[in-house]
Order: sequence, then structure tokens, then C-alpha cells
Amino acid sequence: MAVNLAEPTGLLPVAGVRLSSVAAGIRYQGRDDLVLIELAEGTQCAGVFTQNAFCAAPVIVARDHLQQGDVRYWLINAGNANAGTGEPGMQASHACCELVAQATGSQTQGVLPFSTGVIGEQLAVERFEAAMPATVAGLSGTSDDWLVAAKAIMTTDTLPKAISRQVSIGDQVVTITGMSKGSGMIHPNMATMLGYVATDAALPRAVLQQVLSRVAEQSFNCITVDGDTSTNDALMLAATGQSGVDCSDGDALRAFEQGLQDVCLYLAQAIVRDGEGATKFISMTVDGALDKHEARTVAQTVALSPLVKTAMFASDPNWGRLLAAIGRSPVAALDVSKVTVWLGETLLIENGEPATSYREELGQSEMNSDEIDVRILLGRGDAESTVWTCDFSYDYVKINAEYRS
Amino acid sequence: MAVNLAEPTGLLPVAGVRLSSVAAGIRYQGRDDLVLIELAEGTQCAGVFTQNAFCAAPVIVARDHLQQGDVRYWLINAGNANAGTGEPGMQASHACCELVAQATGSQTQGVLPFSTGVIGEQLAVERFEAAMPATVAGLSGTSDDWLVAAKAIMTTDTLPKAISRQVSIGDQVVTITGMSKGSGMIHPNMATMLGYVATDAALPRAVLQQVLSRVAEQSFNCITVDGDTSTNDALMLAATGQSGVDCSDGDALRAFEQGLQDVCLYLAQAIVRDGEGATKFISMTVDGALDKHEARTVAQTVALSPLVKTAMFASDPNWGRLLAAIGRSPVAALDVSKVTVWLGETLLIENGEPATSYREELGQSEMNSDEIDVRILLGRGDAESTVWTCDFSYDYVKINAEYRS
Repeated sequence: MAVNLAEPTGLLPVAGVRLSSVAAGIRYQGRDDLVLIELAEGTQCAGVFTQNAFCAAPVIVARDHLQQGDVRYWLINAGNANAGTGEPGMQASHACCELVAQATGSQTQGVLPFSTGVIGEQLAVERFEAAMPATVAGLSGTSDDWLVAAKAIMTTDTLPKAISRQVSIGDQVVTITGMSKGSGMIHPNMATMLGYVATDAALPRAVLQQVLSRVAEQSFNCITVDGDTSTNDALMLAATGQSGVDCSDGDALRAFEQGLQDVCLYLAQAIVRDGEGATKFISMTVDGALDKHEARTVAQTVALSPLVKTAMFASDPNWGRLLAAIGRSPVAALDVSKVTVWLGETLLIENGEPATSYREELGQSEMNSDEIDVRILLGRGDAESTVWTCDFSYDYVKINAEYRS
Repeated sequence: MAVNLAEPTGLLPVAGVRLSSVAAGIRYQGRDDLVLIELAEGTQCAGVFTQNAFCAAPVIVARDHLQQGDVRYWLINAGNANAGTGEPGMQASHACCELVAQATGSQTQGVLPFSTGVIGEQLAVERFEAAMPATVAGLSGTSDDWLVAAKAIMTTDTLPKAISRQVSIGDQVVTITGMSKGSGMIHPNMATMLGYVATDAALPRAVLQQVLSRVAEQSFNCITVDGDTSTNDALMLAATGQSGVDCSDGDALRAFEQGLQDVCLYLAQAIVRDGEGATKFISMTVDGALDKHEARTVAQTVALSPLVKTAMFASDPNWGRLLAAIGRSPVAALDVSKVTVWLGETLLIENGEPATSYREELGQSEMNSDEIDVRILLGRGDAESTVWTCDFSYDYVKINAEYRS
């Protein structure tokens, strides 16, 4: 079902990073559902987490451990989100970190836990315990390990999501490899869903955190599937430094950040392409806004409209629904007579009225594509923002009505 | 499909109000689609209209004519919203008012036009012209005329929506009869969809407008189906005064306002019960908020969550989705450890954690009902608000994917 998304190829290992994926039977049978990622000593780590007030136990623990310092392991399970699980859930997350620490001879605070799946069920720590020896024994650093891990963290995803980029820094090269998961409960607020990115570039921790926050704002924070911000969102970035290439400032930092932006944008858009029930990939751009926040607000309002999304599913150029959604956006004193709307190459609305050149066949032709660009010009200023989303199909309802059955 | 909603019975005529419904062929074939409501001379009229910046031509004209003074006619067509139609749309709305004025020997400014249906198609004024003689000739003031009119203004509605209430004022009685339509693009902002209420009580215009605004805030503005505010929303109230009962202040005003509140709440909830694809009627109450706005905001956030609405459709007590939606509500510094959630008579969440008394069978039993009450206690203050909504089903997608085909 995913829209123009294929299984990743050409993934590159990252020096200083080893991965292991096992079938721990946490919820699923007959597939991997537990991933351990080992980061070499000296690796710097940054992260952004969900802003949902009901954040999951592993988010609280991971945030705390990240602040305390030296991160050596990321432990990720699929099938159970360990959210809404109260104090027992916190104890379970701590216990999982201790299991990794004991099995690897490292510090508990050096382990960051992540969980994704059903909310409100207690985590079966004994299954982590039983799986831990095989998990640690399986740590390996080939490109294939990233693909296997990207599959192991899937829930309602239909395809794994991962990518590698190499960035030239002078005559040297650094590698960035990342993976993500998620297709429902997608409406970012600082970060969305789970994303793991590693590089062999060398960056100090403070710079790494700044770069990650900036890039998340321009990638994961620009997507939405259903408007529901997850309790478990996390995006992690590790820099092992093992390339020996210093990217901490200047041109090197800029080149690294652009490479990271490419990786994160691909991973974020891959989540939308694999959005629950998605049949269309939609780019919703708002330009001519007073500021970036206003542009983002209008783009999100239109991108979240169930009426716009069902019309997209039907390939129906029902531009009246676009207008209605723009018109109800929380923007003060919007002058509709200055609003212009393009659907791909077709001018729909000019100065708030149907364009004289518009004909239904033109709109229909644009809508028949599975990649749809909407461009809304507000005529108020110079700020622009793009939000990526998918359509709303029968399968979205089916997937979410049957999720726990 | 409507949830516990039956065809109206026991409607009462209102002295001073005559109605006429005809099949004008504006879009539909073989059914009435044009309604004219005549208000006796001296009738006072109030209205609240959509806040959508892209409001329809008839909304602009009706708002203008209402301000100018003596309203004698409401003209309502179904099948074409005359929205997004630019200057030709404005001319069409004016032309329709002139047709009524000419046929009845009244002033054009005394006619308020209303349209509902597809956005973005020009109104065929010649069909109004052809139908006008029969429309005016058909004006009549029986209770049956209200039911026929309530059917004529339907679009995707599956049932007509109308109700009468009689209010005792001392030893006298006034009658309030109203009708509404709407089942999609429902997310009120000052008013929602189309609602028409008439009474034989006597109230000055300024008081009538205040009462209507207060009542709309506690009825039509408390419902949502899909989060999309219509371009054509309007709620109208006419007081003919022909009962001779002065309700302009004191106990009489309070009694009248309560009766009006009952009528408007029924009409607003009827829209939700007949919401597109609805199989459940959901009352979402938030209490313990700092202020009413905060309570409403949280209630609307949860009521609009596609994940909550699809779980409701599946009768799945997936309270994790309730928590996730509460947690992402735009409320500053929400302390989740003070949040308590009830599903009907079942305690789900106590102090931010699953209640020790909760068992899945209890939640399942509550969810099996087609009337579901969710009560969310924030533990921050004393303010409360309730929002009524429906679930999100396959049929919602089907209705909106096929709307124009």
C-alpha cells in the first residue's frame, strides 16, 4: 500500500555502531521485535522526544539517561508501547536497561529504552531477560544489520524505512545511516515516532543536539498522518567520531547538517508514504504567510482536514474543501481575496475565486497522480512552510478499528 | 444509520410563520429542494453565522440583509452551497432575493438567502425563477409544513431534524419550533450548519440576538463531526410575537431561553446523531479545567482524534488513545498525575494511571452501547464543558469519497 516507497537498498554500516535483532515474542510471533544498538565508547548522542503530556515510561527513562551522559546502548522493542502503564511501566523500563547493562558489563544509565506498539499493557520483562543473551551475542556491524533492525521495529508499517548518505568534508567522507518506523498516531511535536540515525562524523554533544533539533523541525516535525501525537515519539542521533572527521563547525558542520537533513527528510516522508491506508503522498505548501508559524498552521489545518483527505483518496478535485479548510484556519484577518491555490501545475483559485482558466479535466488530471502538490499563497507576507501528509482511505478506518483485535 | 434519532413527530405550527417547499430541480431530482419561510410583519429576527473566512455568498447577503432591518422571508435551497463562486455567486444570491421580493410584493432586503450543498458550482437562478410562483402559492402554516421543509433542506442527512417545545410564561404559553440540517463539514464556530427556529413569543431584536448567541454557544457550538467548519453555517431565530406574550426580560426571558436551549440542543445533537457514517453518539465531558475555554479545547481535541473515533466505531475500549489525545491537547503544564477518566460508569484512569479496579470486560461493556459518555477530570480547577460527536466509520470515508460522483 505504501506510496512510492521501496525496501531500502545500499545501506552503509557506520563505524562504531553494531546492531542486533531478535524475536523475543514480546507481542508478535515469528518475527524479530527487539533491537539492541551498541555505540562505541566516546560516541556523542542527541535526542528529541514527544511533547505529549502523557509520554510513555521509556521516554521518561531515555530522556533522563541521555541527560546523565555517556550513552552506549539503544534498546528498542516493537508491539508494546509501555505507555499509560504507571509505576509498573517505569520499573519495567528500568529493568530492561539493567538487563542490557548486566549482559554487556556497562552502566544502566548508559542504556536508553524505546518502546512502540499498543498503549496500556504492561511490558513482559521476563521475555527481555530470556532474549538478552542471544541479543548481545548477535551484535554485528554490517549494512544488512540496519535493514534487519528497521524491519524488527515495525508495527503497522508495511515496509522498513532506512537510508544512508555520505557527505564529503574536504577530501574526507563521513557516513550517515538512519532508520525510522511509524505509520499511525503521526502528528509531530518536536519529534515523531521512532527514528535512529548514526554517523561516524565527530561532533561535540551540544552541537549534535542543536543540529538534531534544527533538522527535526524541518523533517519529522513537518509530517502528519492523522493529527495524533504519539506518546512514544523519539528521534535519536549518535556520532561515533570513528571517521576521524571533525564536523563541529564551519563548512564541515553545514555539509554534515545538509546530509543529516536529507536522511531525516527521507525517513520522515517514508513514514507518510507508509501512512496507515495511504494511497496518495501529498505535499501541502503554504507561502505568502506573515511568518513561518502561520504558514505551518494553515498547511497543517488543510493537511488534517478529513474532508480534504477523503477527497484526495477519491481523486476528486473538490477544491471547495481546500477553500473551506483554509478559511477555518486559525489565522487572524485572512483576506480571502488575496488567496491563490495551485494543484500541481493547475491554477485552481486566483484572488479567492475560481480561476477563469480552471477546468474540471485539468484538476482531475492532477488528482489522478499518486503524488499531489498543493500550493496555497496567502498574499500576506514572505514566509513559507510545507507539510507532508497522506490521504484518508477505507483502510485507515479498517487498520485502526481492528488494531487490537 | 442515524444513532437513536427518529423522524420528528408532534411538531407545532408557530403563529405568524408560513412555509412552502417545492422541487425546483436545483440539483436533486424527484424531491423538494427549495424552501420559503414567510415571517409575519413585525417579526423580530436574529442570526449567527459561520466564522469561516471563505464564507459563502448567501451568508454575506443574509448577514447584510439581517443588519438592514425588517426580515420577512428566509429562502433556503439544498444541493448547491453557492460557496467559492465569486462575484457571479453574489449576483445569484441577490437575484434570488429579488425573485422572492417581486413575487410577494416585499423589499429585497427583507429576504435572507441560505444555500447548502456542493461548494464551487454556480447557482442556476433560472430554476429559482421557474419555481417561484408555485413556491409563493404554497405558503401554509400547518405543523406538517415544518416536517416537509425539514426534509427539503437535507443533503447527506438521512433523517429530517425538527422539534417543538411549549414554554409556560405565567399562565400563558409560547411555542418554539425549529429545524436543522447537516451531517458533514460539522465543526461549529459561532454557528453550525443550517438551523431555523421560530417562536410566537415577543422579544425585541437586540434581546433576541443576545439569547440566540448564548444558546448557540451551548448547543450548536458544542458539536463536531469531522472538524471542518462549513462555509455556509447559519442559525436563525424569528420571534413573531403573535402569542402576545412578552418574554423580553426577567423570569419570562429565562423561561423562554431555557425552552430555546432545549430546542437548539436537540437540533444540534440530532446533527451528530445523523453524522456522516455515525454508529455511536458520544458525549465528551471535560471537568476540573482552569476555565471553560480550556475544558472545551481538551474535549474537542479528544472528540476530533481519528484514532479515538475509529476505536469508538470498533467498540474497542482502547483508552490509550484517549490518554494520547488528552496529552497532546494544547493545555499548558498539564499534570497527568491528576487526570481521571471515566467511561460511562467505569473508572478507566485514576491519577494518570490505569485504575486498579479496571478490567477489560467493564470497558467492553460500556463500549458496546451506541451512546457513550466519556468524562475527563483534569484536576486543575472547576470549569466544565461537553462536546458531542460521533464515531468514524467506513461509511464516513465512503460518503465523502463519493460525494460529488
